[in-house]
Amino acid sequence: MKKNAFYAQSGGVTSVINATAAALILESKKHKSKIDKVYAGKNGILGALNEELIDTSKESISAIKSLRSRPGGVFGSCRVKLKSLKENKKEYERLVEVFKAHNIGYFFYNGGNDSADTAFKVSQISKKLGYPINCIAIPKTVDNDLAVTDCCPGFGSAAKYIATSTLEASLDVASMSETSTKVFILEVMGRHAGWMAASSALARKDKNDPPHIILMPEVVFNQRKFLTKIKDTVKKYGYCVIVASEGVKNTKGKFLAESNTKDAFGHTQLGGVASKTDLLHAEAVGIYAVRYAVKGMNGVMPVIVRNKKKNYSWKIEPAPLSKIANVEKKIPKSFITKDGFNINSKAINYLRPLIIGEVFPEFEEGIPKLSNLKLLLVPKRLKKWSA
Amino acid sequence: MKKNAFYAQSGGVTSVINATAAALILESKKHKSKIDKVYAGKNGILGALNEELIDTSKESISAIKSLRSRPGGVFGSCRVKLKSLKENKKEYERLVEVFKAHNIGYFFYNGGNDSADTAFKVSQISKKLGYPINCIAIPKTVDNDLAVTDCCPGFGSAAKYIATSTLEASLDVASMSETSTKVFILEVMGRHAGWMAASSALARKDKNDPPHIILMPEVVFNQRKFLTKIKDTVKKYGYCVIVASEGVKNTKGKFLAESNTKDAFGHTQLGGVASKTDLLHAEAVGIYAVRYAVKGMNGVMPVIVRNKKKNYSWKIEPAPLSKIANVEKKIPKSFITKDGFNINSKAINYLRPLIIGEVFPEFEEGIPKLSNLKLLLVPKRLKKWSA
Repeated sequence: MKKNAFYAQSGGVTSVINATAAALILESKKHKSKIDKVYAGKNGILGALNEELIDTSKESISAIKSLRSRPGGVFGSCRVKLKSLKENKKEYERLVEVFKAHNIGYFFYNGGNDSADTAFKVSQISKKLGYPINCIAIPKTVDNDLAVTDCCPGFGSAAKYIATSTLEASLDVASMSETSTKVFILEVMGRHAGWMAASSALARKDKNDPPHIILMPEVVFNQRKFLTKIKDTVKKYGYCVIVASEGVKNTKGKFLAESNTKDAFGHTQLGGVASKTDLLHAEAVGIYAVRYAVKGMNGVMPVIVRNKKKNYSWKIEPAPLSKIANVEKKIPKSFITKDGFNINSKAINYLRPLIIGEVFPEFEEGIPKLSNLKLLLVPKRLKKWSA
Repeated sequence: MKKNAFYAQSGGVTSVINATAAALILESKKHKSKIDKVYAGKNGILGALNEELIDTSKESISAIKSLRSRPGGVFGSCRVKLKSLKENKKEYERLVEVFKAHNIGYFFYNGGNDSADTAFKVSQISKKLGYPINCIAIPKTVDNDLAVTDCCPGFGSAAKYIATSTLEASLDVASMSETSTKVFILEVMGRHAGWMAASSALARKDKNDPPHIILMPEVVFNQRKFLTKIKDTVKKYGYCVIVASEGVKNTKGKFLAESNTKDAFGHTQLGGVASKTDLLHAEAVGIYAVRYAVKGMNGVMPVIVRNKKKNYSWKIEPAPLSKIANVEKKIPKSFITKDGFNINSKAINYLRPLIIGEVFPEFEEGIPKLSNLKLLLVPKRLKKWSA
C-alpha cells in the first residue's frame, strides 16, 4: 500500500545535508509502489506539528539535483527536542493526527544526537499509539559525535574547511609574524567532543607544522602548561597557531569561552567546496534510509561502517536507534598525545580519508549558484495546533 | 648593464600576492639583458635592511609557477613603514649599502597605502643619495583603498569570499531562524573604507535578499535607526543579516568595535578559490612592474584602468606614486543608498566584475597543495645592521 513520506532536517545545518535530502527524494521515486510523495517539514519537526508540509513532488528533477551542492538547509531546520511520550503525549498525538491526515507512513529525521533521540521516540508511536510508522533517523552533524557510525555526514566537509583554514591562516600568520601577531587562536565548534578542533591537524605536512596546539574538551585545560607550550613554540618557530574547541573546560569544569552561552553557528561551508567522501556518505545515508523504510524497518539509522582494509572503503548498515540516541562519541584517549595538546597518527589515519576529494559547486555571477525551488506547501486539512 | 632586482611583499597578505610575485619573477626572466636575479626580501623591507635576500633564481620554474595559487606571502611580509629621508636618513643609507653590495638596480615593493608611501620615498634615493634605482610600487590590498587604480589586486578575491560567506551564512541563518538566532552580524575588515563590507551586497540575487544592512565607515552609525531597521527586517523576513566594517564609528568618532585595537588578520582565502579577474589583475601588475622598470621608470605604480565599455575590460597603465602615496580611496557617496545602510546598483556594477571567475587550487590529501620552495638566502656581504 502506497504511503507518503515525511522528511525533516533538524538542528544546525551542514554543507551536505541538502545532498542527503536530494538523494532521499530521488531514491524514493524508485520505490513508487511503496512511497507516493515526499513531504519535507518546513523548519524541521515544526513542519509536522504545524502541518506545514512542503510537497517535493512539485519540484523539477533538476531542482532536486541542484540541492547536491546547495548550502544551508533548504526546507528550514529547527532546534526542538521532543519530550518523551510520557511527558508530552499531546505532541505525539498531534504527529499521528498529521500523519493520518496526509497518509504518511514513513518518517525520516535527518539530524544529530537530539534528532536520533526524537526519532527513537517517534519510532515507538507504532507500538504505543497504534499508528503504523516506519521511522528512520539519518545521521548529520558537523560534530561527528554520533555513536555506532564510523563518522557523521557533514563532519568531513567541516573538517576539510577547518584543516584548509588552519593551513591558510597559519601561512598568513607565518608571513607576518616578524612584526605582527605571533600567537593565533582559531576557535571552532565542539562543546563536548573535539573532533572539529582535532581535524585542524590535517593541515600538517610535517610534524612541526602548525597547528602547534589543539585544545579539545576531552582534555582538562591546564593554563600553566598551555602558556609554557606557547612560549616554547614561539621561541622555536617564531609563531604559534592554536586551534581551540569552544567546549574547553578548566579544572573546575567551567567553559573557558564566554561565547559558549551563545548559539554557535557552524558556518562550515568552503565556498561550497565539499569533501567528496563526505558528500558520498551524505547521499548514501539518504538512499539507504529509503531502502530500510520500504523494507519495513523502524527505529534504525543507516550508519557508515569502515571496512578493515588498508585503503579506505566503507559501506552502509542499519543500526538500532536505541544504541545511538543520547550517546556521545568523544575522541578516544588513544587518539590524543600524552601532553594533551595534540592528536597522534592513529587519529590522523582515522580523519584523513574523510576530507579527501573536492566537489566544487557551480558558480554564477561570481558566487555559488542557487536554483530556485518552489517550496509549495500541501493544503492544510487540520486545525491550527498549539503546544 | 645588468642589475639585480629586489622584490618585497608588504603588509597583510592577500590570496593573490604570490601570483604577483610569480608573474614578476617569470617576466624578469624575459629581460635577461637588464635584470639578472630577482632577490626577494625575507619578511618584506626588513629583508633589505637585514640583508636577508632570498635568491629566487635557485627555485625551479614549476615551483615559481605553483605560487599562483599559494596562500600567504611566501617570502614573508611585515608591517614596517619607513620614515622620511629627513627623519631617518640612516635607514635609507643602509638600503643603498645593501643595494650596492648586491648590485641591485630595481626595487619592487608590493603592498598597500603605507607601501606606496615607502616606495615613493625609496624612489627619491636616486636624486637625494645619488644611487640610481628604479623603484616601482605594485598594488596589493584587500582594502581596495588605493587611489588612481580602479581596484586593488587582492580585493576581488576578498570580495568574492565575503559575498560567498554572506550568502552561505544567510542560508544557514534563514534555515534556523524559526527557533534560533534571528539576527546575524558578520564583521569584516576595513578601518577607513567599507569596500569589503560593501562587497557582501554581491550575495544578493533580489533586492530583498540578505544582507539586509551594511555598515560602512563612510556612514556615521546611528543606533536608533539601526535598531529600527533590524526590527522591521526581522518582522518582514523572520531574520536579519548585517555585515559590518570593523571601522564603523559613532557620532563621537569612536570605533564601535572593541577589537579595533587588535591587528585584524585578513583571512580572505576561500579554500584557495580566487577570483579569476583578481588573479589576472595580480599577475598583470607584476608583469608591468618589470616592464616599467626595465624602461627606466621610477616612482610609479602599474594601475588597473577600467575601459569605458559596456562589457568589463581593463588595461594597465603607469601612475606616479606622488598621486597615490597616503591617499585613501573611500566608497563614494554616490554608491551608498540614502538611508546609509546599503549600496546601490552603481556600486554593484563597479564591484561585480571583480569577483567573476574561479581559480581553484590543486588539492593534495584533502587540502590545498603547497609546493616546497628552497628559499635560499644570498650570502651576506655586510655587517649586521641595527636601526
